[in-house]
Amino acid sequence: MSLEQADAVAVAAAVREGKVSAVEVTKAALQRIAARDNQLNCFTTVTAETALADAERIDREIAQGKNPGCLAGVPFAVKNLFDIAGLTTLAGAKINAENPPATQDATAIARLKQAGAVLVGALNMDEYAYGFVTENFHYGTTHNPHDLKRIAGGSSGGSAAAIAANLVPLTLGSDTNGSIRVPAALCGVYGLKPTYGRLSRAGVALFSNSLDHIGPFARSVRDIATAFDVLQGEDERDPVCTKRPQLQMLDAMSRQSIESLRIAIAGDYFEKGASPEALEAVQNIADALGVTQYVTIPEAHRARAAAFVITACEGANLHLEKLRLRPQDFDPATRDRFLAGALIPSSWYIQAQRFRRWYRDKVREIFQKVDVILAPTTPISAPFIGQETMILDGEEILVRPHLGLFTQPLSFIGLPVLSVPIVRPNALPLGIQLIAAPYNEALILRVASVLEAKGVLCV
Amino acid sequence: MSLEQADAVAVAAAVREGKVSAVEVTKAALQRIAARDNQLNCFTTVTAETALADAERIDREIAQGKNPGCLAGVPFAVKNLFDIAGLTTLAGAKINAENPPATQDATAIARLKQAGAVLVGALNMDEYAYGFVTENFHYGTTHNPHDLKRIAGGSSGGSAAAIAANLVPLTLGSDTNGSIRVPAALCGVYGLKPTYGRLSRAGVALFSNSLDHIGPFARSVRDIATAFDVLQGEDERDPVCTKRPQLQMLDAMSRQSIESLRIAIAGDYFEKGASPEALEAVQNIADALGVTQYVTIPEAHRARAAAFVITACEGANLHLEKLRLRPQDFDPATRDRFLAGALIPSSWYIQAQRFRRWYRDKVREIFQKVDVILAPTTPISAPFIGQETMILDGEEILVRPHLGLFTQPLSFIGLPVLSVPIVRPNALPLGIQLIAAPYNEALILRVASVLEAKGVLCV
Repeated sequence: MSLEQADAVAVAAAVREGKVSAVEVTKAALQRIAARDNQLNCFTTVTAETALADAERIDREIAQGKNPGCLAGVPFAVKNLFDIAGLTTLAGAKINAENPPATQDATAIARLKQAGAVLVGALNMDEYAYGFVTENFHYGTTHNPHDLKRIAGGSSGGSAAAIAANLVPLTLGSDTNGSIRVPAALCGVYGLKPTYGRLSRAGVALFSNSLDHIGPFARSVRDIATAFDVLQGEDERDPVCTKRPQLQMLDAMSRQSIESLRIAIAGDYFEKGASPEALEAVQNIADALGVTQYVTIPEAHRARAAAFVITACEGANLHLEKLRLRPQDFDPATRDRFLAGALIPSSWYIQAQRFRRWYRDKVREIFQKVDVILAPTTPISAPFIGQETMILDGEEILVRPHLGLFTQPLSFIGLPVLSVPIVRPNALPLGIQLIAAPYNEALILRVASVLEAKGVLCV
Repeated sequence: MSLEQADAVAVAAAVREGKVSAVEVTKAALQRIAARDNQLNCFTTVTAETALADAERIDREIAQGKNPGCLAGVPFAVKNLFDIAGLTTLAGAKINAENPPATQDATAIARLKQAGAVLVGALNMDEYAYGFVTENFHYGTTHNPHDLKRIAGGSSGGSAAAIAANLVPLTLGSDTNGSIRVPAALCGVYGLKPTYGRLSRAGVALFSNSLDHIGPFARSVRDIATAFDVLQGEDERDPVCTKRPQLQMLDAMSRQSIESLRIAIAGDYFEKGASPEALEAVQNIADALGVTQYVTIPEAHRARAAAFVITACEGANLHLEKLRLRPQDFDPATRDRFLAGALIPSSWYIQAQRFRRWYRDKVREIFQKVDVILAPTTPISAPFIGQETMILDGEEILVRPHLGLFTQPLSFIGLPVLSVPIVRPNALPLGIQLIAAPYNEALILRVASVLEAKGVLCV
């Protein structure tokens, strides 16, 4: 396998062993970006200069016999809502381009750099992360590497497509209602939305405070685990959450057997709106694991509705002043939903938060009986750019909101979910969600690594 | 001192030592209620039959040599938003009178009964706890025992007046924006609003979920501490809060010296809107403690505004259906504020909650330098029943909302506050708030017991 297609762990091993220098790896990544990103539009900024300087430093450290870190020389890039010191954080918005440059890297970036990874740029997204398509009015559409006429998904579209196109082996994104999992599925890569609050959001532009998560994209399960291990840990810059058990995932997932795990397929809601190909993909994964049991997550449709309300209200609150003063400078697709959110009465928002507590308790009960749940990530594979509707369950419905049909009810209560990519010869990729109780990332990573070893997943 | 004026600890001691029977104490309390409550209107229900049965059981236990509990034979009563098994929980509302009887006592009632206390009835309040006056449209006005032409304060007006009138030595109330502290001050009794979440709200009708607290009223500091000790502890029926350190207050307050405590007077906002008599009362307490330092609680006026918004929104959400279907059955004073709350956009509510986090952090910084803060409880002593306006700082303002001027900014972030009664010969009572950092109830009880011993407080 070439270094271009290698995963991050393999790249770091080659760099650490001196088979290739960090500078060579970085230059190769920058060349791929220069050659292909005109077509793909994954990157909004390429940080070639600082990337090469960072790579040179890593090579010097290796020459000096120092430990360059577990991600030595691994090129990575981040959704452009992460602060990069010296650059303006766009968050997909034209308005934000007027902001001064960030003075400090986001905690997640600082940690990856400390582990030896080399930041090569910032990635395209839906404006303010409000979308599942990455058809950005200001910065253009990100194209799906599997078919350039199709969307990469969103809002972390650039993060998923950059992995799928082999531009870099590791990226970061954020997920509010599915913004990591949806593009991971449509581009056929791994994307992890961790437990709410478990990874620091310090230096990340917020969309919806009570729903936002950050997480990694990669092309192997061990890369996801390695990135998680580097990213996790206390962070006094992030006041949101204090409970952060620091289990080492790479270690935990390799030691744990899946024989004892109770795995089930999400029934009802998670079957009803899915296309035949998505249901078949779930069935194939269930067969590979010998799983026949089904569980019902109650009131999932209400959970999705409540997530919609909370997102619209919290998002509108964050941008209210700008919505009043300069609505014409927003992406029209984003603006109109924010404006609608600003008009929602407080009682709807409070009711949604009240329902959320009820729903969290109900789902907690399910995880007394089941360890891991399987569900489709998206109801369909990647639609065409500009495609407005799709047929699901005999009904013509809007594409944009419905790509999050199966992801929204899960992030709504902060469950950890890994979207794994499905092998489909001569067809577009699909994703399957592996879902666990809060703080049980290790269980889903272990199931994913078993599936990966069986060869039923493929990037 | 007669048993009528004795505090709960003294009554329990007399019962336990056999100087008086629980039945005698209970009958005496029921006779006082029968004789005086026509004028006062503290009680909405008197539970004479079950009270006498409970008292007989306690007397039997004593006769059998069993331990009857630390509150043996102490008559108590509760604001009528606490569930009493077999009675309908009114919450001050005509609409709620149609509800079926509660099937189980509120946790707080069950705990007091288990400690030997005898429940004699339910107490008047503002409808749905939304008010500072206890001028209830459906169940009448509770009169201030110090001057029957004046209000008792609210919303736990019955709870404060029943203590001040010596009907019972112990009552329970609830405090959202000041509903324990305001009537405690206006009636000249002790009222404790503990740290948010520290005492179980199970079986208590909610007003504003993120602001509601329950707490005791009494006529001595040791009674408050004893009641707190009985009430505290884990409760699986109350999902709101899990952090409940179980320090025994009666013990903690007696061991701790106040010499080492850093005590300060709340300046700026807490001086500006206070009447000269309220400021003088704070000064007298400061002098008694040798306190000269001032602290500024920043943006307290915004904290009060944010508390208003959150209360109106959460309250409206709870009653929305009834507000739509039968607005004519609400207390007009309550209904119009709920209706206004139902129209508040979600962004205001979210902004208020965002401010709340900022404010909590700022006040936490203050408590790095100060242990206990002194502030007036109300800006004025009890106004007349029906009085609409008052003059404060040269301006004529509405009485009803402004009675909470100094209490709202403190409960907004869940700080524990004890309102202590001030000695004022030939004048109406006033209250002073002793305020501490979350979970530091022991500090304020200790300061209160020193003040009580000095004779500057008096019920």
